[in-house]
This record gives sequence, structure tokens and C-alpha cells, in this order.
Amino acid sequence: MTTPWRASVLTIFPDLFPGPLGCSVLGRALEAGIWSLDAVDLRDFATDRHRSVDDTPFGGGAGMVMRPDVVAAAVAAVHGPGDARPLLYMSPRGAPFSQDEARRLAGGPGAVILSGRYEGVDERAIEACGFLEVSLGDFVMTGGEIAAMALLDATVRLLPGVVGSSASLEEESFSSGLLEYPHYTRPQSWEGRSVPPVLLSGHHAEIHAWRQAAALALTRRRRPDLLATAAGHPQPDQFAQPEPPR
Amino acid sequence: MTTPWRASVLTIFPDLFPGPLGCSVLGRALEAGIWSLDAVDLRDFATDRHRSVDDTPFGGGAGMVMRPDVVAAAVAAVHGPGDARPLLYMSPRGAPFSQDEARRLAGGPGAVILSGRYEGVDERAIEACGFLEVSLGDFVMTGGEIAAMALLDATVRLLPGVVGSSASLEEESFSSGLLEYPHYTRPQSWEGRSVPPVLLSGHHAEIHAWRQAAALALTRRRRPDLLATAAGHPQPDQFAQPEPPR
Repeated sequence: MTTPWRASVLTIFPDLFPGPLGCSVLGRALEAGIWSLDAVDLRDFATDRHRSVDDTPFGGGAGMVMRPDVVAAAVAAVHGPGDARPLLYMSPRGAPFSQDEARRLAGGPGAVILSGRYEGVDERAIEACGFLEVSLGDFVMTGGEIAAMALLDATVRLLPGVVGSSASLEEESFSSGLLEYPHYTRPQSWEGRSVPPVLLSGHHAEIHAWRQAAALALTRRRRPDLLATAAGHPQPDQFAQPEPPR
Repeated sequence: MTTPWRASVLTIFPDLFPGPLGCSVLGRALEAGIWSLDAVDLRDFATDRHRSVDDTPFGGGAGMVMRPDVVAAAVAAVHGPGDARPLLYMSPRGAPFSQDEARRLAGGPGAVILSGRYEGVDERAIEACGFLEVSLGDFVMTGGEIAAMALLDATVRLLPGVVGSSASLEEESFSSGLLEYPHYTRPQSWEGRSVPPVLLSGHHAEIHAWRQAAALALTRRRRPDLLATAAGHPQPDQFAQPEPPR
């Protein structure tokens, strides 16, 4: 048996895990040992009797900030010297997560993910631990837990044996740099709407050509920005290195 | 008492809700009636005794496709004629979700969200129901449930009364088109790393200026693409209209 892909999530809400990650193909892969998930309670690393993980921000302002000592102690407990897993901090300030990054992560040994709450995490903890800030997108959430779930979902499903057919992975959005073509299933005629005749033709080459053209047209209409990538232009490796400390 | 912001999620995994949306400030707002969440089981709208919601794709290929009749029946059940809520389908082919869209959604009556599974949803259901496809980002997940949670988290926290202080919302990432400045809390000196002295000065104007400069420097380094928006250039309203049917 090979070593599972290992996820550790640092959170003040460990009971939320595995949650949605425990159902369907991801849940079966978890049970099968293809990946492992360890939800670590940040409060276990607090040093006061109230188990505080946060404090007021220096310089004033709204909200609370996660303490650097608590975060660093939690990291030290789950990420020993020989552990090659990247440390990721889910934050809207980070590098936008993408399918390329999901592939890269899936090719590694796993990930340690910090799910922040409150106003944010003390900047010194981010620098000292070498966290890479990763963003789901240009929006703000109340905490990093759902963001961590999204990142893990997108990554774990790429591990060998998780999704039944590898063909499913090859034809989906972004695998060729294009959005995915439209799908149709029964009933063949529904409320006056028919399935495109070519899909009923049995001509595999024509079906393939139709789907390619549909994917290209959809991408051109909705996401022309993706076409540069589809044409083979390389993308920068956003997670290759943490930013230099300031 | 005012009408709550109403979320309906169509899913084959209704038990996953509220899940992470039931904890912390979002959970308290749910209990307080600021918003409501209705997880609707798509299988209740299946027409066969196996409660099937999917079938094989016309034209062949891997995976299964959600049937248009099942999806449309579920929509009809939760979205009556007077219901002004937008119909959103979480899909990597959609318009990228953003803080602007979260604000727009929060200003409306709620949302009906279809969380797909399998290979996708029959295109005719998307067209006939008028679903707007919304993407969390350029990555693929096993289903739309976690994506729906992320969208609802980002949106519901903007409703009045959900997050304690409105100042928290005003200073965060994207509120001014910039990434958020770094945060610091106790201990003041930690592992040889000190808090920037200006934050201890008590000079509110200097603190404000330092934070503005730090936010601008961070944005310029990590996300220069955001600076056009920060300068006041208008963004297109991606969700204003569904695409015209083809």
C-alpha cells in the first residue's frame, strides 16, 4: 500500500471536517486510504486558560487577529523537519487557485492548510512559517474552512483512483485550456427542445469535432482570456516560491 | 420583522447543509432569521422508482449527466412566478464570482443555487430555466455543494447585522479594490520579529497612511491587475443577463 496524500487543516472548527469532503467519491477515497485528512484544532495550541487564539490588532481597527505564537505552535506540531508538504494559508490576498495548481498539489505529498478566521492572521506567522497565501477568488469569506474544502476537493479528485474514469478528467473544463462543451442526456426531446442531431449520429469523429467546436465557441464567448493559455502559452508558477520576507 | 434573504440549494446531498454555513456568525444569522436556507433534494423530483437524477450522455463519453426534466421540476417547486431570486448554476464554465457579485446578490431577495454532480447538467435545463452559470474559479470540483457554500458565505456575511462591525467589511480586501494590509497582534515581539513601530505610535493618521501604503504595495506586487479597478474603472456586470439561448 502506498502512502496516502496527506492533508492537515489547522482550524478553530475541526468538527466541520471532513463534512462535504466525506461524501461521494472523495469520501470513498478517504476510506480507501488514497488520501488522509487531519483537522487540527488551533485552540489546542493556545497558552491561556481561555484557549484564546486571537487578540486585538496593533494600530487599532475592527476585528481580531490570530496570534503568531499559536499558529506557529500548531504548524510545528503537524509539520516536522522531513515533511515536504507545502504550507498554504487560505486568504483573498493570495495567488488565485487554479486547475494547474490543483494538478501540482496532487502530484506532491499533500498539504498543510491554515483556515483563518476573524480579521486575519498575524503577518509574522505567515512569514516565519513560510505560508503561501492562496486565494479561491476575488471575494471575502468569514473563514478559510470552506476555501480549504474547495481546494482539497479540486486537488484530491485528481489523485489516481479517485474519479472512476480518467477520461472524465481529460475532457473537462481547463484540461485543454477550454471550457467544457455542453452535455445532453435523456429525454431526447424535452419541452420542445431536442438534442443536437450530430450527438445521435453515432459518428464518433463528427461528435468529437462538434464538441471541440462547441467548447471553443463557448470559451471565446465567455472567457476569451483563456484562449491565450489554450494556445500553449506558458503560465507563471504562482506557488513555486513564497514571497521574499519584507 | 423583515423578510429574510432566502437561499434554496438544489442538490443530491441536502444533508451537507447548512454544514459550515451553520457555524459562527453565519449560523447565528441563520438562527436569527436574517437569512434562510432550504436544501432541496433533487431525487425528490425523479420519476422512476430508483430515484435517478442522471443518465448517460448522448454522443457518448465518460460520466453521467443530470436530466433536464428532474432539474426543471425542482426549479418549478422552489421558484414560483413571483420569485425574483436569480437562478445560479455553479459551474467552472460560468462567470467568475467576485466581491462585486456578492454585493449585488446580497442586495437582492436571495438565490436559488443548483449544485451539480457527475459530468454536468443537460444544457437544455440551463437554457430553459434561465440559469446563470457562476464559477468560483478556474478549477474543477466533484460537485457544486462546496462552491454553493463559498458563494453563500461571501454573500450572507454582507447582509446587515451578520458581521458585528461594518468597519470590518469596509477595510477588507476588495472593498477599496486593494488587497488588505498586514495585521499584527500580541505578542509585540515574537521570535525576534517586532510589530512595525508606527502601529504602536498611537498616531491614527500615520497608521492609516502606513496601512494604505502597505495595501497598495501588496496589491502592486501580487495583483497588479486589480489596480485598474481600484483606480475607479467600471467593471462589466457579468450577472446582469443570462446569455441568449442558442
